[in-house]
Amino acid sequence: MSCEVSLPEAKKVAIFGGTHGNEMSGVTLVNLWLKNRAEIRRSGVEVQPFITNPRAVEKCTRYIDIDLNRAFTPENLSKREAEDHPYEIKRALEINRIFGPKGSSDAYDVIFDLHNTTSNMGCTLILESSQDHLNLQMVHYIKQAVAPMTCSVLVNEHPFLQYSTSRSVAKHPIGLEVGPQPQGVLRSNIFQSMRLILRHALDFIELFNGGMEFPPCTVDVYQVTERVDYPRDTNGNITAMVHPNLQDCDWEPLNPGDPMFLTFDGRTVEYKGGNTVYPTFINEAAYYEKQQAFVITKRGTLIARQIKVSKM
Amino acid sequence: MSCEVSLPEAKKVAIFGGTHGNEMSGVTLVNLWLKNRAEIRRSGVEVQPFITNPRAVEKCTRYIDIDLNRAFTPENLSKREAEDHPYEIKRALEINRIFGPKGSSDAYDVIFDLHNTTSNMGCTLILESSQDHLNLQMVHYIKQAVAPMTCSVLVNEHPFLQYSTSRSVAKHPIGLEVGPQPQGVLRSNIFQSMRLILRHALDFIELFNGGMEFPPCTVDVYQVTERVDYPRDTNGNITAMVHPNLQDCDWEPLNPGDPMFLTFDGRTVEYKGGNTVYPTFINEAAYYEKQQAFVITKRGTLIARQIKVSKM
Ligand SMILES: [Zn+2]
Ligand SMILES: [Zn+2]
Repeated sequence: MSCEVSLPEAKKVAIFGGTHGNEMSGVTLVNLWLKNRAEIRRSGVEVQPFITNPRAVEKCTRYIDIDLNRAFTPENLSKREAEDHPYEIKRALEINRIFGPKGSSDAYDVIFDLHNTTSNMGCTLILESSQDHLNLQMVHYIKQAVAPMTCSVLVNEHPFLQYSTSRSVAKHPIGLEVGPQPQGVLRSNIFQSMRLILRHALDFIELFNGGMEFPPCTVDVYQVTERVDYPRDTNGNITAMVHPNLQDCDWEPLNPGDPMFLTFDGRTVEYKGGNTVYPTFINEAAYYEKQQAFVITKRGTLIARQIKVSKM
Repeated sequence: MSCEVSLPEAKKVAIFGGTHGNEMSGVTLVNLWLKNRAEIRRSGVEVQPFITNPRAVEKCTRYIDIDLNRAFTPENLSKREAEDHPYEIKRALEINRIFGPKGSSDAYDVIFDLHNTTSNMGCTLILESSQDHLNLQMVHYIKQAVAPMTCSVLVNEHPFLQYSTSRSVAKHPIGLEVGPQPQGVLRSNIFQSMRLILRHALDFIELFNGGMEFPPCTVDVYQVTERVDYPRDTNGNITAMVHPNLQDCDWEPLNPGDPMFLTFDGRTVEYKGGNTVYPTFINEAAYYEKQQAFVITKRGTLIARQIKVSKM
C-alpha cells in the first residue's frame, strides 16, 4: 500500500475578506488586491479576491442581519433566491452559486477566509477537517516558512461546535484569524502578518500545482472541545470578567484550579475541569452575543500524508 | 487680593455610562451602580448613575443615528422635543432636561462621563476648560490618589476642535477615557482602573463639600492643538496605517522626522511639524469615520487656585 495521496491541481482559489465587516486586515488586503493583483498572481492558479459581506464592510459592522460565517448550512443553501431572506442568507446563496456549490465538483478548490480577533491569538490557521491532506501540508509549509514567528493551527470538527463557514463552500476551506486587533481598527503588525501568511499559502499552491512532492509530516494542532460562557445571574446578565491571569493567555495551559473569571464583587472563579486544557478566543468581542467567554481546546498531532499533484 | 476661590457645594453629581454604547467599562459600572449604590454613596451628595444611550447599549454599537457625544450643540438643544428627530437628538434634549439645562443654575454640578478607547492612552481625565478650579483640584487629587498609576489630563478647549459632549450640560464636566480596550469587550484591568478613579473622584467631592480646603497647586496637562487624518488617495480611500513606531505610543514625544504612517506599499510617512508634540487617541476605532488618525497635543502646566466650599 502506498501512503502517497494524489490530488488534483488547486486551480481555483479565492481569498475572502469582510466575512465580518469590521475585521479590517482582510477587508483592506482584499480591497488592495482587487485593485492590483500582482502580489497574489501565481502561475497556473486563478486567484480571486472577494469581499463577502460588502454591506457590513460599508457600515463597519460584523453583519447586517445574521452572522454570515454561520449561514452556510444545508438548510439555508437549499433555499430559493428570493427578496425576503435576511441579507446574509441572500449573500450566502450568491457566494455558494459563485464559489460552490458546496460539496460539488464545481466548487472552488481552496478558499482562504481572512478574519481578525480581539483575542491575543497571534496568527491562527483554522481547519475544518483533520483528514484534509492538502490543507495539512499547506499549514505545515506555512508554519515552517514564517518561523520563528508562531502560527497556531486550530481544528474545529467538533460534532456540534463546528459551524457553517463562508469558506466551507470550497473543497479545501482554510480560515486565517489574526489578533489581537480591535474591531474597526487596522494595526500594521497584524496586517503584515496576515499578508505574509497569504503569500506563503499561495506559494505552496503554486509549488504543489507545479509538481513538487510534499513528504509525510506531522502538524501540532489544537482541537476544539468545549465552549465556556461567562458567569451569569438568574436574569442572564454577565456577573464576571475574564480573570487577569487568563486574559491574553490564549494557547497557554489552563490547569484545574487556575483562575478563570473575576466577578464584579471581586471573587475568583476557578477552572474546575479534570485536566489541563488550552483556551483560545479568550474575551473575543463578537462572542459575547454567542454566550462564549472562550473556547477550550486540547493539543494533538495530526499526520499529513505525502501528497503530489495528479495531472490528468 | 485673595487667591482663594469660594465655590458652592457640589450637591448634584451624575455618572454617565453608555454615551457610546460599545464602551463596556462605563456601561457595566453604571449598570452595577444602578442596582446597588453603596459604592458611590457619599455624605452630602446626590450621585446619579445614568445610561445615556440605552438603545446603543442594547445594540452594543457606538450610536444609533448620530454620535451622542457631539450632539449637545446650542442648535440641537434649542430644538423642540418631537418625534422626527434622530434618536440621539431626542436623547440629548431629554438629558438636557434632566441634568441641565446646559449653562443654567439648575444644571447638575458635576457629570462624570465614562468612556473607553482602543488607543493605548491608559487613564485619561478630559477637561473642557483650563479655568475650572474645582475640576483642576479634583484631577490633582485623583492623580495623587492613584499614584504610582499614571492618570493623564487632556484639556480640549480648542476653538474649533472642541465638541459638544453629553457631560457639557453640567457646570463641571469631566470625561474619563480608559484604554486600550476593544469596542464590545470588557477587560478587568481597564474596568478596575475606571472604578478606582471614580471612587477617588467621589471622595474628593465629599471632602470638598465637607469643608476641606485645597491649597493652590499645578497640574501637568496635554492640550489639544490639532487633528491628523490618515493619508488618502484621490477617491478618499485610506492608503496607509499608523506606523508601528507610533502605534501604542500615546503621550510619547513625536519629533519632526519621526515615522507617522506606513503606506500599504511600504513607504514611511514622517511627521513634518516644526516641533515636538504629544499624540494621543492614536488609531482609535471610532475616529476612522471622523477622518482622524490621532490627535496632537502640546504639554502645559495649569494653575489651580485654592478652593473651599462656600456654605450659604
Ligand atoms: Zn471574523
Ligand atoms: Zn466614547
